[in-house]
Amino acid sequence: MGKLIDLNCDMGEGFGHWTLGEAPDEDLMALISSANVAAGFHAGDPNSIDRVVQLAKTYGVGLGAHPAYNDLQGFGRRFIDTSPEELVNDILYQVGAVREFGRRHGVALQHIKPHGALYMEAAKNETLSLKLIDTLRDTSGDTILFCMGVSKTYDIARKLGQPVVREFYADRDYGDDGSIVFRRKVQRPDPQAVADKCLRACLENKVETVDGKVIDIEFESICFHSDTPGAVAIGQAIRDGLTAEGITIAPAATVLEQTSA
Amino acid sequence: MGKLIDLNCDMGEGFGHWTLGEAPDEDLMALISSANVAAGFHAGDPNSIDRVVQLAKTYGVGLGAHPAYNDLQGFGRRFIDTSPEELVNDILYQVGAVREFGRRHGVALQHIKPHGALYMEAAKNETLSLKLIDTLRDTSGDTILFCMGVSKTYDIARKLGQPVVREFYADRDYGDDGSIVFRRKVQRPDPQAVADKCLRACLENKVETVDGKVIDIEFESICFHSDTPGAVAIGQAIRDGLTAEGITIAPAATVLEQTSA
Amino acid sequence: MGKLIDLNCDMGEGFGHWTLGEAPDEDLMALISSANVAAGFHAGDPNSIDRVVQLAKTYGVGLGAHPAYNDLQGFGRRFIDTSPEELVNDILYQVGAVREFGRRHGVALQHIKPHGALYMEAAKNETLSLKLIDTLRDTSGDTILFCMGVSKTYDIARKLGQPVVREFYADRDYGDDGSIVFRRKVQRPDPQAVADKCLRACLENKVETVDGKVIDIEFESICFHSDTPGAVAIGQAIRDGLTAEGITIAPAATVLEQTSA
Amino acid sequence: MGKLIDLNCDMGEGFGHWTLGEAPDEDLMALISSANVAAGFHAGDPNSIDRVVQLAKTYGVGLGAHPAYNDLQGFGRRFIDTSPEELVNDILYQVGAVREFGRRHGVALQHIKPHGALYMEAAKNETLSLKLIDTLRDTSGDTILFCMGVSKTYDIARKLGQPVVREFYADRDYGDDGSIVFRRKVQRPDPQAVADKCLRACLENKVETVDGKVIDIEFESICFHSDTPGAVAIGQAIRDGLTAEGITIAPAATVLEQTSA
Repeated sequence: MGKLIDLNCDMGEGFGHWTLGEAPDEDLMALISSANVAAGFHAGDPNSIDRVVQLAKTYGVGLGAHPAYNDLQGFGRRFIDTSPEELVNDILYQVGAVREFGRRHGVALQHIKPHGALYMEAAKNETLSLKLIDTLRDTSGDTILFCMGVSKTYDIARKLGQPVVREFYADRDYGDDGSIVFRRKVQRPDPQAVADKCLRACLENKVETVDGKVIDIEFESICFHSDTPGAVAIGQAIRDGLTAEGITIAPAATVLEQTSA
Repeated sequence: MGKLIDLNCDMGEGFGHWTLGEAPDEDLMALISSANVAAGFHAGDPNSIDRVVQLAKTYGVGLGAHPAYNDLQGFGRRFIDTSPEELVNDILYQVGAVREFGRRHGVALQHIKPHGALYMEAAKNETLSLKLIDTLRDTSGDTILFCMGVSKTYDIARKLGQPVVREFYADRDYGDDGSIVFRRKVQRPDPQAVADKCLRACLENKVETVDGKVIDIEFESICFHSDTPGAVAIGQAIRDGLTAEGITIAPAATVLEQTSA
Repeated sequence: MGKLIDLNCDMGEGFGHWTLGEAPDEDLMALISSANVAAGFHAGDPNSIDRVVQLAKTYGVGLGAHPAYNDLQGFGRRFIDTSPEELVNDILYQVGAVREFGRRHGVALQHIKPHGALYMEAAKNETLSLKLIDTLRDTSGDTILFCMGVSKTYDIARKLGQPVVREFYADRDYGDDGSIVFRRKVQRPDPQAVADKCLRACLENKVETVDGKVIDIEFESICFHSDTPGAVAIGQAIRDGLTAEGITIAPAATVLEQTSA
Repeated sequence: MGKLIDLNCDMGEGFGHWTLGEAPDEDLMALISSANVAAGFHAGDPNSIDRVVQLAKTYGVGLGAHPAYNDLQGFGRRFIDTSPEELVNDILYQVGAVREFGRRHGVALQHIKPHGALYMEAAKNETLSLKLIDTLRDTSGDTILFCMGVSKTYDIARKLGQPVVREFYADRDYGDDGSIVFRRKVQRPDPQAVADKCLRACLENKVETVDGKVIDIEFESICFHSDTPGAVAIGQAIRDGLTAEGITIAPAATVLEQTSA
């Protein structure tokens, strides 16, 4: 078998009466191999979780929990100064909720991906990453943790033996140090340009930074966002671009199996 | 072995900075055999759930999820007019959260007890009880559902084969039809009187109603409330009164095993 | 001066990261004469309130508070069984918040329009309408209350002397008794048909019900919804249709002045 | 007239079914001259606001709004990384809500006191203090802002002409730089020791720090906390101690009038 890569997307990021982005969930699910399901703290509610988990099952997409800071108004994008112990409790609460809907629909939890400010904080906060992974060793030893390649999260997960997947951000810009440059307002990107960026990253392990430098990048999953304008076209372009070069899009768990085989 | 009875209490019904009632959790846990853990919708937060689940483990108390209407301000005591489908999703979300902390501390979920207005609504709403139990058949076939003896919930659980436990309400009053008469403000009851009421119910299956009538009552678990003034003294009196008559207080799962044996 | 009619719309019904409907706020503000600003309980947050109040000032639109049941997930469309006293406190809280942003931008509060299930409940619940209007007599004697023509709210407001405006629902259907038939999913209506319905109501005081009957209707304000598909086209068609027949669209306060003159 | 000093306390810091601290609101109101009313974001709900505002009126206590970060679970004690613009909107929302209940009961808003982490952040964050006070100049030119003596908030309020009151913290410890040392768990302090500390501060403008140093301190209001164990005894001791030395306890507005006279 040729090269495998995971393609993941945040899903179910509406709340109650509100939806996020223009892309229908079904159209995105048909393109991706792993779904990060909003768990109610930054977005998502029990009804959306139920719906998205069902869709993940229908499309054979790996099921992930997408826990966040408890901040619905700020969409989980604001740092909240709280202790690692409390944050890990918040994360477990959200993971358990998503896992229960997986139980309902007969889908095992494949992965956990912290959202927004929590993802960024964990990347640089060693105590938080340690506390989180230490806890996951007990509750979710086989569940894959998604993270930034250049992060405390990755280093500690590898050290403690937690399955871990590094992400490549299709619709985000890179800094020279390999970190992502978050922006509140994302413009409508050109799908082909995004696909080309992903393909280069897959084949050459290179990406160009916002400052024009080309840096090395390693990853097992490509992430794009459901609320990026033109998300379906972007996902389709990535999938087509990779497939044309013989790269197979597969759930993170399958990618990890191949890697470790 | 003599007669077994379960003794349950709602636990962890504070929120954030606030606590509920005067009784220390540890003191109550030492007295009861099943704990209903507030799951965040009417009370409770990830930190309190974590703490109470740990306590349940320490004291060998059966772990229960205590889901409610999503109404923190109203403490889950206000009916919200929503669909059974949405309510069951709300319940699953909360059950999953509590179950995850059980996973963390190595305690299986023993039971589910809906809270307040949701408990009362399920008792009389056949569609809701059916939808809930139907779903539990898939997700939680061995988990015991706590309910009122005279209720749609009980009838449907028996019919569909879901393990079910009927409650006797130590610190609530009964109407002539066997239903409970809820009051927002509960006076400080006399512990011995409560204990005597429980003992009579256990030995004779009789209880006196608010109107002075004596009715038949059947149950497998006695419930008292952690925020009833004097809760620890009440729990102690019930335990002492029953034990003195050779009745053993045991988790609901143990009680059901004996019943079905 | 010829006939005056108010044209009102719910505004600012997003929350945090989410928006509602496809219509830009500015485009709607240019068409209407009264804006009902979501106050945070069913939708809206301090940032959206600030933005919408500023827009209302810019466009000379009458400022209204749009209080609701405390139910963000249910968008204020679910009845919550609570006391009139508590509901009126919830309403005052929201009214005060909107009024404060009016204070910031130099706009007086023109009106209050309860939202969704609260609007419907007040229409038929005499105790609630009485408690609300009694309180408004003290806090907001000059503020106009928006309501259904056939409602306890209207009857009591008239009796107690609270300024009151009856609404005609451009994009909702009528029952034979003059009440509105709420539907969760609203189809994309034909703007011209909506405009014609409004014009007939203004000129003849007649509307056709869902059952084909023609009933009498009296009102001082026409309401359409910002999240109805094609809202801008609908508002434009109503405005054009009325203006062509010599009817002037003016804020509710101006309409009431003419009526009482 | 002799020396005047204000005595303020946070009030209404329960939520829904929960209360905070052991002290009855009425007992505290009888002792203080200014009340900071929790406005719903860290504590308080429309019902508690209504009740506390009524009490403030009954006891002739100056009415204050006590806005906070939007963080009910964290009791407003956790820093949230958000923009000054958004924070000021959050503050206005809460101020407006409290003001509306003042309107209901015929009490003007005397002051605004940011709570917890927001108070501390404003103290050191010049941009935030500037944005806040700039806005208050427009909406609340006569409303007194409560703050730390050594703070950006005080400096900017003085510079821009906003009425401002500095606080002395009766039941908090001081650092050598005059800042307060916050602690999550507060022990039960000796009321007489607290009263002596306040008296010395009033008469000599001196306070001893946690490190045993004696520093200068200037203030117009003494603050103690309703949830400090023994709050009523503490308030009584402060009041008795000051009164015995001819110092009169009076609302902040009266204190400021004397100062500026």
